[in-house]
Amino acid sequence: MKISELSRRSGVSVATIKYYLREGLLPKGEATAATQAGYSEAHVRRLRLIRALAEAADLPLARVKGVLDAVDDPEIGLHRLLGTALYELGPRITPPADDPEWRRAEEATDRLLDELGWKVTSRAPARLHLARTVATMARLGRPVGPELLRSYAETAHSTARRDLEQIDPDRPREDNVEHAIAMTLLLEQAFVAMRRLAQEDLSARRFTADPPEEC
Amino acid sequence: MKISELSRRSGVSVATIKYYLREGLLPKGEATAATQAGYSEAHVRRLRLIRALAEAADLPLARVKGVLDAVDDPEIGLHRLLGTALYELGPRITPPADDPEWRRAEEATDRLLDELGWKVTSRAPARLHLARTVATMARLGRPVGPELLRSYAETAHSTARRDLEQIDPDRPREDNVEHAIAMTLLLEQAFVAMRRLAQEDLSARRFTADPPEEC
Repeated sequence: MKISELSRRSGVSVATIKYYLREGLLPKGEATAATQAGYSEAHVRRLRLIRALAEAADLPLARVKGVLDAVDDPEIGLHRLLGTALYELGPRITPPADDPEWRRAEEATDRLLDELGWKVTSRAPARLHLARTVATMARLGRPVGPELLRSYAETAHSTARRDLEQIDPDRPREDNVEHAIAMTLLLEQAFVAMRRLAQEDLSARRFTADPPEEC
Repeated sequence: MKISELSRRSGVSVATIKYYLREGLLPKGEATAATQAGYSEAHVRRLRLIRALAEAADLPLARVKGVLDAVDDPEIGLHRLLGTALYELGPRITPPADDPEWRRAEEATDRLLDELGWKVTSRAPARLHLARTVATMARLGRPVGPELLRSYAETAHSTARRDLEQIDPDRPREDNVEHAIAMTLLLEQAFVAMRRLAQEDLSARRFTADPPEEC
């Protein structure tokens, strides 16, 4: 198909498609004439994935590129590929050099993960992401105790289990890879949105003058 | 205390403190001389909250200001204040004008919340946040069914319940308000981080060549 049809099919403007081609996010089409290229269903699909990653998961294009490069490298196994997506997501945190609150928070996080026996590398960015939150709560004089972290861990593990159950390693590789990335990035957003809706509901029930209801 | 001590106590540079004073994020100190002002424990505490909101929750300063203004307005009740924080968080999403996938996603989200009987206003940004994710998954050919959304809703409600249990409306208002905002913004980050760690653990167990283990 021509670039105009690719644009119509994918909902991405021709100018943006050309930008993605220049940046190497989208593979070039097959040359059909000196100034024309033909595009395939694979291009439609790739554009939809780029749109999902960039718009819905709020990934900057440089990180979208990192994820797509891993998708296209058949040497990378499913676990490492999922890790690539997870590790690209950020936030990328540099711990402050000499902050005792941070050191305590990192120790508490590492200890909890050890006790849980989770298989997580020492360079997983989510360790620092979690430690930063723990350190900030402590600095605010509202420490997060191990009980709350354990209950979060239990809940997080059960939602993550449902997410990963959707992945069948026997299905075609590219299909599965796209699925894993979309699930990881997008369903996180769905859960955050659902948690805020639940907070609003519970706040309305507890802190307004309405008569109490069963919930 | 002088601005230099305020800086030392809060860990925020003097230049940044002056910037916050100019922008109205931090109330002015009490004039102690023509060119000097004295600062109090309230300033130390407010700076810590700004730092938590701006750094750990990644809120832009304009939104930090919106939250602080609500904190300082005694007319705003606890539920509306929590709503102000939740509604400031973003992402602020404008639904596309004529997209059938979006319309279906919004209808599915609204129907689910109706069935759950949650007390959530029709303008809650998290409705659109959730609908966007549902629409994107559908566009990728990987629709999110009502069962998954219901299981997310159940999990989200139980974590939100634990979060809100920490809030005691009988405690001093400013204290509770800061606590609610910190809990909402920061613990969301903690849960996202924990979920990514859980995904890495489960992926390691399922998709690597290691012998399977109990988990």
